[in-house]
Amino acid sequence: MQTAVISSPFRLSTISTHSRIPSRNNASIRLPPIRMAHTETGPSVAVVGVTGAVGQEFLKVISDRNFPYRSIKMLASSRSAGKQLTFEDKEYVVEEMKDESFDGVDIALFSAGGGISKKMGPIAVEKGCIVVDNSSAFRMTEGVPLVIPEVNPEAMAHIKVGKRQGALIANPNCSTIICLMAVTPLHRHAKVKRMVVSTYQAASGAGAAAMEELELQTREVLAGKPPTCNIFSQQYAFNLFSHNAPVGENGYNEEEMKLVKETRKIWNCQEVQVTATCIRVPVMRAHAENVNLQFENPLDEDTARQILKEAAGIVVIDDRASNHFPTPLEVSSKDDVAVGRIRRDISLNGNYGLDIFVCGDQIRKGAALNAVQIAEKLL
Amino acid sequence: MQTAVISSPFRLSTISTHSRIPSRNNASIRLPPIRMAHTETGPSVAVVGVTGAVGQEFLKVISDRNFPYRSIKMLASSRSAGKQLTFEDKEYVVEEMKDESFDGVDIALFSAGGGISKKMGPIAVEKGCIVVDNSSAFRMTEGVPLVIPEVNPEAMAHIKVGKRQGALIANPNCSTIICLMAVTPLHRHAKVKRMVVSTYQAASGAGAAAMEELELQTREVLAGKPPTCNIFSQQYAFNLFSHNAPVGENGYNEEEMKLVKETRKIWNCQEVQVTATCIRVPVMRAHAENVNLQFENPLDEDTARQILKEAAGIVVIDDRASNHFPTPLEVSSKDDVAVGRIRRDISLNGNYGLDIFVCGDQIRKGAALNAVQIAEKLL
Repeated sequence: MQTAVISSPFRLSTISTHSRIPSRNNASIRLPPIRMAHTETGPSVAVVGVTGAVGQEFLKVISDRNFPYRSIKMLASSRSAGKQLTFEDKEYVVEEMKDESFDGVDIALFSAGGGISKKMGPIAVEKGCIVVDNSSAFRMTEGVPLVIPEVNPEAMAHIKVGKRQGALIANPNCSTIICLMAVTPLHRHAKVKRMVVSTYQAASGAGAAAMEELELQTREVLAGKPPTCNIFSQQYAFNLFSHNAPVGENGYNEEEMKLVKETRKIWNCQEVQVTATCIRVPVMRAHAENVNLQFENPLDEDTARQILKEAAGIVVIDDRASNHFPTPLEVSSKDDVAVGRIRRDISLNGNYGLDIFVCGDQIRKGAALNAVQIAEKLL
Repeated sequence: MQTAVISSPFRLSTISTHSRIPSRNNASIRLPPIRMAHTETGPSVAVVGVTGAVGQEFLKVISDRNFPYRSIKMLASSRSAGKQLTFEDKEYVVEEMKDESFDGVDIALFSAGGGISKKMGPIAVEKGCIVVDNSSAFRMTEGVPLVIPEVNPEAMAHIKVGKRQGALIANPNCSTIICLMAVTPLHRHAKVKRMVVSTYQAASGAGAAAMEELELQTREVLAGKPPTCNIFSQQYAFNLFSHNAPVGENGYNEEEMKLVKETRKIWNCQEVQVTATCIRVPVMRAHAENVNLQFENPLDEDTARQILKEAAGIVVIDDRASNHFPTPLEVSSKDDVAVGRIRRDISLNGNYGLDIFVCGDQIRKGAALNAVQIAEKLL
């Protein structure tokens, strides 16, 4: 056992029978772990929000990827302080995060909500720490790189551990990461003019408690009982609903506007037109997205499929004969984003449109993995 | 009790706590039933596939709407023949469908699969029966009206009971009906040029056995057991997947092509451009659809909302402040199609685009209700 063991609510999250995903670069086929703990040359790391769904996944990913660290601090709110956890055969006590927590810390991985990031992020930076922040607090702040390592690593090229110079780097929203992992290689080839995104989002995006509520509600509904609605205002089991983020004046909710704005920032392309509708579906931890693309230059579907097959972090699952395409279950706990249903959009003339269907693990590539990949680029 | 009582597998289908849908024209507020059975003036009716999910709903709708009938025959395959059922306080025995079954029948409501429709539909027509067919067998056949009564009743205006002249009328596919119920009023106002549809389809579209399998799988997964996969080739519980219809050469599956082709036929508009991606989600009996619309003429969102509020068979649920929009659960077993998330598409200039989110009961308006409404127009 090398992963963290706080009692995990994600019993369902790893159930994955009938998994037919081609293995590639995934945790399941990783090399035997080389222990990097206490490596003199590794950075000093802090995990902020370590008891949450993403916090726990930070630790798994650090372990899976043998991310080197000299020391690691487990930080959380006072509510979780004092809890014990085991990580890579070593016992840790969860500490309450304070200003001093960041003294001497090189890299802090934050996933404790936007409020905590806004308050503690700048304090950590002040102390020379590089903060990789999974919240939306700084994503659109000018000067803060918003990075998907496979897409725009250049945006953070000037930030390195060792300079002892604090900095903020923002992890994009999960829906944006999963979408752009698939769309960017096509965009580079044919330039996306307009993108219509419809999401099928998992419970995990609303945190571990939401996953627990989905499971609890499902048990209740199957038993003929009224469902417990604490996290969401309505029944989630055997149902779906418009994403619970607040709706703005233009009728788009904040989740949808993240897709619009973050895409422009990550691509450094203000002219790309995006519309999105974000829907929560009763799935545990992986998002699906249906993406309709209009291009400036022609791109036929065979070329698109080839481009995607060669893209880093992407696996193409597109078997029309056996009706095998990406599903959330197949990508759960996997690193790669899966793409399928790649086809010419018959509603447009010529090869100027494509429809694709994308699935990615929300906690992993949508959050923790992307953040740790950012941290790797800091070394 | 006035509805049919064959043992029903749809325990979940009617669970609808937190229902906030405005009541209008719905079964729940119907007038006390007036018994029309044995009415001399009513037509003689046959229900084909009476033991299936849609067959059972045919009976419910006939009862709910007080559809007049002189007699009613309960027809099914030899497998179901001999079963007893109670309908409007009268006992019936399910009969095996044979050629002679249609002797003297005025209206036959078919929902027993395309194969049965292809074989028995023409035989019934030959005997002077008007067949309202819920399968895809004749939908695209020239001369066969494809009808949503609120949309294109004129297509069947020449067909009436009393002439004793047989005819076929096709019920559109569930996804098409639900989509066009919402989109047609907008199309009439501003003419739809292009439509991008992403569906979130319920188990019921694959029949009663699929609904049972979703429930069974969910129980199994919650108990840590492998899921039973008889109807679908993969886990459906806590998962979603591309619609199981066969995929054609252009990469679209048959369900998607129905949306493309049926829209053109129903609107009598060959130039409308449609692309669709059809996805099954773990929901029992109501479909959701995200529809992105591009118009030839401008249509602002307030006008669109007003048009939809005034449209027959539509209920607008579009409360941005309280994040209350249509859900499959709220429309389950309801007649009206719900529309919300009505907003200007910010990816297009001016008022030439709208995004809307639509939910409708797949068994009711998506199948049985629409067919009975067609039958009403025959009288």
